[in-house]
Amino acid sequence: MAENLVNFGILGCAKIAIKLARAINLAPNSTLHAIASRSLEKAKQFAIQNGLSETIKIYGSYEELLDDPSIEVVYLPLPTSLHVQWTVLAAQKKKHVLLEKPVALDVGDLDKILEACVSNGVQFLDGSMWLHHPRTMRMKELLFDSNLVGHVDFIHSTSTAKMPPEFFENNIRVKQDMDALGVLGDLGWYCVGAVLWAKNYELPNVVSALPAGVTRNSAGIVLSCTACLNYDQDHKTVAVIHCSFFSYTSMDLSITGTKGSLHLKDFVIPYQEGSAFFDLASPSTFMDDQTGWNAETEKVVVDNELPQEAFMVQELARLAQGIKKCEFRPDNRWPEISRKTQIVVDAIKKSIDLDCKPVYL
Amino acid sequence: MAENLVNFGILGCAKIAIKLARAINLAPNSTLHAIASRSLEKAKQFAIQNGLSETIKIYGSYEELLDDPSIEVVYLPLPTSLHVQWTVLAAQKKKHVLLEKPVALDVGDLDKILEACVSNGVQFLDGSMWLHHPRTMRMKELLFDSNLVGHVDFIHSTSTAKMPPEFFENNIRVKQDMDALGVLGDLGWYCVGAVLWAKNYELPNVVSALPAGVTRNSAGIVLSCTACLNYDQDHKTVAVIHCSFFSYTSMDLSITGTKGSLHLKDFVIPYQEGSAFFDLASPSTFMDDQTGWNAETEKVVVDNELPQEAFMVQELARLAQGIKKCEFRPDNRWPEISRKTQIVVDAIKKSIDLDCKPVYL
Repeated sequence: MAENLVNFGILGCAKIAIKLARAINLAPNSTLHAIASRSLEKAKQFAIQNGLSETIKIYGSYEELLDDPSIEVVYLPLPTSLHVQWTVLAAQKKKHVLLEKPVALDVGDLDKILEACVSNGVQFLDGSMWLHHPRTMRMKELLFDSNLVGHVDFIHSTSTAKMPPEFFENNIRVKQDMDALGVLGDLGWYCVGAVLWAKNYELPNVVSALPAGVTRNSAGIVLSCTACLNYDQDHKTVAVIHCSFFSYTSMDLSITGTKGSLHLKDFVIPYQEGSAFFDLASPSTFMDDQTGWNAETEKVVVDNELPQEAFMVQELARLAQGIKKCEFRPDNRWPEISRKTQIVVDAIKKSIDLDCKPVYL
Repeated sequence: MAENLVNFGILGCAKIAIKLARAINLAPNSTLHAIASRSLEKAKQFAIQNGLSETIKIYGSYEELLDDPSIEVVYLPLPTSLHVQWTVLAAQKKKHVLLEKPVALDVGDLDKILEACVSNGVQFLDGSMWLHHPRTMRMKELLFDSNLVGHVDFIHSTSTAKMPPEFFENNIRVKQDMDALGVLGDLGWYCVGAVLWAKNYELPNVVSALPAGVTRNSAGIVLSCTACLNYDQDHKTVAVIHCSFFSYTSMDLSITGTKGSLHLKDFVIPYQEGSAFFDLASPSTFMDDQTGWNAETEKVVVDNELPQEAFMVQELARLAQGIKKCEFRPDNRWPEISRKTQIVVDAIKKSIDLDCKPVYL
């Protein structure tokens, strides 16, 4: 059986790697082959603390892991500023890459990564787990059923997490030389991704940060941001996103159309692992005397046998197998999704830098 | 008993008057004494079709109703363009007024109305029913419990209703000489009111309509609008409102704070008459491995023995009794709420007229 499993390596022992190590072992077509840290001791500790199998190889440098010919896919949970260097090298070593989001500091950097993937024939996938949840697929089916939601004219998406005081001092996500996109990359990435997803990856034509929503630290890193994504042409839609390190945990996604609406409050990470739900409001009217509605929203439950991150791993392993066994070309859809998300994140950042002036795409 | 009931008159037989006639009879301290239409026949038909008591007086002109000395409170469900004329006259006739929203075409007009109420010592209340629902009171208690929601930093509010094609041709709400505020007055009024309510009636300091969200008809009447209300000073908050005659029915209110959040999807008119609920998310954290949340939101249910519009009537009747029996002065709180709502609605309208430039308050 083992020869049918795709070998993953994890490059860097960030906290999120714990979740991915588990997902790689849960997914039916992948296995964790090796982990690497810049220090062998740290990698060993990570393996012990997380109860990883003793057969897993442990490397004390990223280069060694990339030189292991058994590894087919590399997961990179590194600070964003290191993404170009290590992802390009991974691609050159013919490894498929699962790159943690935000994928790059800007689209110029991302293009270096994507070009390396294309020229080396390897698959690129970013770590947006929620896109792989069966709930997300189900919502998309309903969203594009012309009888249910209709034309989407308003999207509201939030991703917020209240961080403790020490976060603002020490965390890599507020450091210019580490994750210079701040909250835009860490949480805004999800909101932007959700808007693009709901619009079937049509880009907005104007993006504006909203002045009162923007907070930056002394180094200029964005800590909270509210922004408006305008689709001002054929298919008019307004989307408002809100991401913040100050607000209490929220992951709202509301999509309002001419015929119905979808609502969920846990779109990034579902409340529970094995089952998730969303609310669908489809055509209903008021009672004649306007004393109530004739229908509440319907709770649509979607069970999932694997957690969303395992579905993500499974998807990448499936693509890797297709490339290896069937000589398929890498699937261009996933890098395009990442690139469009980056373009919009960059535009919001630019709007903030321009004192919240509109940025045209 | 009857002498303890406050006598209401309804001036105009609009559809919404049906709901209010019922509410006046449901409220324990009020009774419907008379109705008036510009045509006696229309008023009679209204009384018959709605099964009103045969003892109710029926007038064929607004003036006659206002001249009836038994009437203490007048409810005015008239097109907005007629509000100054008839509400000022009602005040001059010493009637307390329940004025349907939007209360005026602009704050200048509203001030004429409020000055007439003050100088005649009568109570003013606008027809925002949801403010009187026990659920609204309960949410406010939780909102200002410093341990639950914390500082409110993001508010999202929608009020949308998909109107049929004939609405856009004929309805008074899209006519320049009737309800020139269009959707801003009809539905945006609620969104603005909800933001002010959540901010304890602090005014935003900058208001901007968002270009892609604005649709107007050929007469310039606003049919859909998304706008941002910025609190940019001491207590930073961003609020985004969306009102539209094109989107499917929605009445979302989400309030996100530093410690928790409140969510409801039926804030204007609850799904059911006798019981309503909202979702409260108070401090919770992720599981250590980030595979789920350790708490879903709590559904807070609030039962109500009367529909919200009857609570509204009861409040006004209570104030009217206090003025009559105890020589209380009219309560200034309600007209102030209306006036602040009007100021913000006007600012959004101005921003739209200025091609969505920010308007400073």
